[in-house]
Amino acid sequence: MTAREIIQKKRDGKTLTESEIVFFIHAYLRGEIADYQMSALLMAIYFQGMSFDETVTLTRIMRDSGEVLDFSHLSGSKVDKHSTGGVGDKVSLILAPLVAAAGIHVPMISGRGLGHTGGTLDKLESIPGFQTRLPLSRFKKQVEEIGACLIGQSEKICPADRRIYALRDATATVQSIPLICGSILSKKLAEGLDALALNVKVGNGAIFEDSATAEELAEHLIRTAAAFNLNTVALLTDMSQPLGVAVGNWLEVCEAIEILKGGGPEDTKQVTLALGAIMLQLAGKTKDLRSGMTRLRALLENGAAWQKFLEIVRAQEGDVKFLENPDQYPAPKHRFEVKASEAGFVAAINAREIGRLCMLLGAGRQAVDEAIDYTAGMLIHKKIGDPVHPGEPLVTLQNSGQSPDNDFQEMTRACFSIRRQPATPPKLLQKLFDVHGVHTITEIG
Amino acid sequence: MTAREIIQKKRDGKTLTESEIVFFIHAYLRGEIADYQMSALLMAIYFQGMSFDETVTLTRIMRDSGEVLDFSHLSGSKVDKHSTGGVGDKVSLILAPLVAAAGIHVPMISGRGLGHTGGTLDKLESIPGFQTRLPLSRFKKQVEEIGACLIGQSEKICPADRRIYALRDATATVQSIPLICGSILSKKLAEGLDALALNVKVGNGAIFEDSATAEELAEHLIRTAAAFNLNTVALLTDMSQPLGVAVGNWLEVCEAIEILKGGGPEDTKQVTLALGAIMLQLAGKTKDLRSGMTRLRALLENGAAWQKFLEIVRAQEGDVKFLENPDQYPAPKHRFEVKASEAGFVAAINAREIGRLCMLLGAGRQAVDEAIDYTAGMLIHKKIGDPVHPGEPLVTLQNSGQSPDNDFQEMTRACFSIRRQPATPPKLLQKLFDVHGVHTITEIG
Repeated sequence: MTAREIIQKKRDGKTLTESEIVFFIHAYLRGEIADYQMSALLMAIYFQGMSFDETVTLTRIMRDSGEVLDFSHLSGSKVDKHSTGGVGDKVSLILAPLVAAAGIHVPMISGRGLGHTGGTLDKLESIPGFQTRLPLSRFKKQVEEIGACLIGQSEKICPADRRIYALRDATATVQSIPLICGSILSKKLAEGLDALALNVKVGNGAIFEDSATAEELAEHLIRTAAAFNLNTVALLTDMSQPLGVAVGNWLEVCEAIEILKGGGPEDTKQVTLALGAIMLQLAGKTKDLRSGMTRLRALLENGAAWQKFLEIVRAQEGDVKFLENPDQYPAPKHRFEVKASEAGFVAAINAREIGRLCMLLGAGRQAVDEAIDYTAGMLIHKKIGDPVHPGEPLVTLQNSGQSPDNDFQEMTRACFSIRRQPATPPKLLQKLFDVHGVHTITEIG
Repeated sequence: MTAREIIQKKRDGKTLTESEIVFFIHAYLRGEIADYQMSALLMAIYFQGMSFDETVTLTRIMRDSGEVLDFSHLSGSKVDKHSTGGVGDKVSLILAPLVAAAGIHVPMISGRGLGHTGGTLDKLESIPGFQTRLPLSRFKKQVEEIGACLIGQSEKICPADRRIYALRDATATVQSIPLICGSILSKKLAEGLDALALNVKVGNGAIFEDSATAEELAEHLIRTAAAFNLNTVALLTDMSQPLGVAVGNWLEVCEAIEILKGGGPEDTKQVTLALGAIMLQLAGKTKDLRSGMTRLRALLENGAAWQKFLEIVRAQEGDVKFLENPDQYPAPKHRFEVKASEAGFVAAINAREIGRLCMLLGAGRQAVDEAIDYTAGMLIHKKIGDPVHPGEPLVTLQNSGQSPDNDFQEMTRACFSIRRQPATPPKLLQKLFDVHGVHTITEIG
């Protein structure tokens, strides 16, 4: 059995045995199989896919490549949420304190921004002092005592995934359902969870633009998680436009604060409440999603979620002064309004391009070692279906690095398709997948 | 333009522009694009192919990555031959002196054995003293003065191909028509040829087992060569069993000596004469293939080709004593006969496995830095269609390393399918491809 023979077998569309997958990953981690052989295998998997059994084996080996946490001594449910990535998705910032306030343990290991999508870690680190690199012992202790802790992927958790994901990002092999399943679930299984809520995004700002592939991903995630007895529900939500108003790290923290204080944009709140209700149901703390959402809404309105957020930020050494008084946060050096040049209705928004432009403004990294401008980002004033008049602001751009030029403002304007005829906003909460199958979202509408 | 964007474009089946291919290869050679990105692109090309224009661009960039020889000051034609690789293919050893004796200049840059196929360089180096690493100035001088020189790929010729081929070998991306075209033709174009005879093998010992793909390769090679005004003819020959009797380096040199002295197996001689006649015709030295073959046969019979071979070997510091008296060559330590266990006719031979077993005997390398046992190899006593009686020898195995055990002898026996009913030998010379199209081989039958 050689690396080349295994690559060739997958290239030819055959199913790899458990021992072949184990050999390949272990030899790779030992440095006996080169990056260039791993990337060739990844591209072969991109084209030929993997069977269910292959995906389960890959997930298990990646999980077991590092430490697997154990929270079994804690009496309450350990439930996390993971999103496949979008633009303006600040849900984790709100959800973790919200469901922790409802008595669920949330051991949340998050990622950084990548390409056009933001990352929860970068958003959290826009809060001065906030620490996302904690020892696992401290992570466990905070989950036990406060109910939630949000950290980055430690080098001790799923090292196989860390290395393979970096290769996938550099070799255009991210968009592969079995590889996505392996990457997401290996990390989540290593968190020692009882259950998992997944948010699978669909639309031009998501990993998969079309519903069919996004739904296939949701089904594969559910099925693979079930093989590990991890009770999982996936919520399919729209990502054909940014979620909420804010895109960019500190701007998104501010939107999260608004929601945690009972206000904020309705779409961000809807996705958060729906995922929170799913987590409550998975933890056996609500009989149905509708009553779960009602209960969580109360925790936003009575300040409990907000207090839990402050508690978490304090525990992770963040300076809550800026959360309590966002006006004290350093202002961006540049701020521009991009205005509509024609009248009509917003028919479509290129969310992927909005994300890419925010990255260029400084909100994300083009290379791994780039610094982030936490003030950089956009406020989206018009969403799909909104009427627009010439001269009305579509977007506010802001950053503190190089001032965005006219071309940049024009590229931002071009993200909005304005049509004469009225347009219908996309359905935000689309479908729900669990081990029993797929459900429409009427019960929580 | 980033490496990832270019990989993704090819992954998605789109056509790369000239500037994208130039950027990718040049950045790779400068070390700015990693091996793992190149191997991902190679696998994407394996699946998505390349257009004609892409293949021409790739070939040109690889040719121009190193030195391009110039023999334009020589009055005679410069013609080389290249084979896509097979088992027992010692044709180059005979062909180079044979057509040089007919007045053609043959600047031949050859390769080493790879996987189940042997390499001309390894065969030549089984002659004690023979030098295959010569400075290009000496290579040019020998081509001018003696008519032929056989060397290995210098680091100065097509460095892009050297690096990419090594990756392809390790990542199961060898069997891609555009990549094969680029690899073969970039090297041959760098030799400063006027014309090229290609031997495309088809069958279980060849790079492509099925006729359709082998013919597609032949057509692509002809078409791509034509874009560079390199007059090229491809001869499709059978590789569903080893060529001739001998497989293994010194054994093949001995078979070449027999043919150069007017004897030897008929199939090896047929392929050599046909390719030689094609080279004569490409050089304008014969009106048709049949008369070319007649002329070349005379050069085998009158000793001219043999004398030219000795002249070449002497010029490259080989000890001709062993050519003149092969009995003086070190004998193999082990020699076994593998005998038939049943009666019938040879219906099929697994040439690929024969090649692999010879490699394991010591005739080839499993890793790049392994030493070769020049005495190792097989003599094939029965070919497809031959009647077989129980106890008759099928193969003689020989080597000087570890003695082949019973299992090995059994694996060798299993390469022969013996059936009750008579079998027809495969057609050896199958088709001929040139810029005008495809021709059947009746004229030289």
